Amino acid sequence: MGNASIASDTHTLTVGKLTRELTLVRPTPNVQLPLVEFLGDTELAQAAAEEMKPLIPEGTEVLFTCETSSIPLVFALSVVSGLPYEVARKRRRPYMVDPLIQDVASMTLGVGETLWLDTRHAAKLKGKRVTVVLDVVSSGGTVNALERLVNRAGGTAHGRVAAFSQGEPKIEMRVMQALPIFKR
Amino acid sequence: MGNASIASDTHTLTVGKLTRELTLVRPTPNVQLPLVEFLGDTELAQAAAEEMKPLIPEGTEVLFTCETSSIPLVFALSVVSGLPYEVARKRRRPYMVDPLIQDVASMTLGVGETLWLDTRHAAKLKGKRVTVVLDVVSSGGTVNALERLVNRAGGTAHGRVAAFSQGEPKIEMRVMQALPIFKR
Repeated sequence: MGNASIASDTHTLTVGKLTRELTLVRPTPNVQLPLVEFLGDTELAQAAAEEMKPLIPEGTEVLFTCETSSIPLVFALSVVSGLPYEVARKRRRPYMVDPLIQDVASMTLGVGETLWLDTRHAAKLKGKRVTVVLDVVSSGGTVNALERLVNRAGGTAHGRVAAFSQGEPKIEMRVMQALPIFKR
Repeated sequence: MGNASIASDTHTLTVGKLTRELTLVRPTPNVQLPLVEFLGDTELAQAAAEEMKPLIPEGTEVLFTCETSSIPLVFALSVVSGLPYEVARKRRRPYMVDPLIQDVASMTLGVGETLWLDTRHAAKLKGKRVTVVLDVVSSGGTVNALERLVNRAGGTAHGRVAAFSQGEPKIEMRVMQALPIFKR
């Protein structure tokens, strides 16, 4: 990872045998970031899952993420690892019963989000060693919120695995690949 | 499908070789519905995808759904069919450029929702025969909104496939299985 000058409007990503030309997006006037999207790219999710499988800490019993962009990845990782997964929601659903509610302090977006975990799903984490899975980790705020949910559900935060890091996460996390940040 | 008396607090679902005891939820005082959730159940999504594969109309080039609960299903269906998929979002994302915006008239929830499809994803539907995929179809409002997005993106609405129907959808749709509605 590192800061590089802006070379083009795309960034070439390589995962296993796959390559993708990622669009660069500009969150602030002087910064460009490659946009990775697992939603709508079956092969990319499968290739990343193969690369991430060895990063899952031994002893993990359940994978845990939040909606939406990480869902294809955690699903593909569930398939290759044989481990079950759970997903925290970002909106309350009408059928939820006594959900756990957890605020996320997101440095990236500058706005808070809230995660919701229904009782029935929290029960699947209870007494289990749980590894948090994300598509992209930037500040680490989402990871912290997910781990608080794990603890509140009676599980143990056992590991952290991300496909990509962007910037300098303030937490330790096993990452498949660092994405570049292009600054003028 | 049909109306039955309330026999227990769960409904036994069978998909292929799998069985699941579904929780019954009560949207109104006199009605109970089985709650099917693909999120967090890798085996159920895979089993349903196997059963749904033959329902995909010949000539389909892209599968299309909206977040969130249908994502594991459409992903598993993409894997078994070899077809790509796209997902309309329910919230605007900061990186979207000139997204297509489509309101959904939802009879079930009594509230409207809005679907967002970024330019980059709309481009994947252009000139393609697109089949809409949903986990559960009830009124058909979401299907109609997704097909309007297909048309506005320059694609052709080619087919409609759902894992489950609940109630009496006002549209024609190929459905793997009808879920019961329990009325007092």
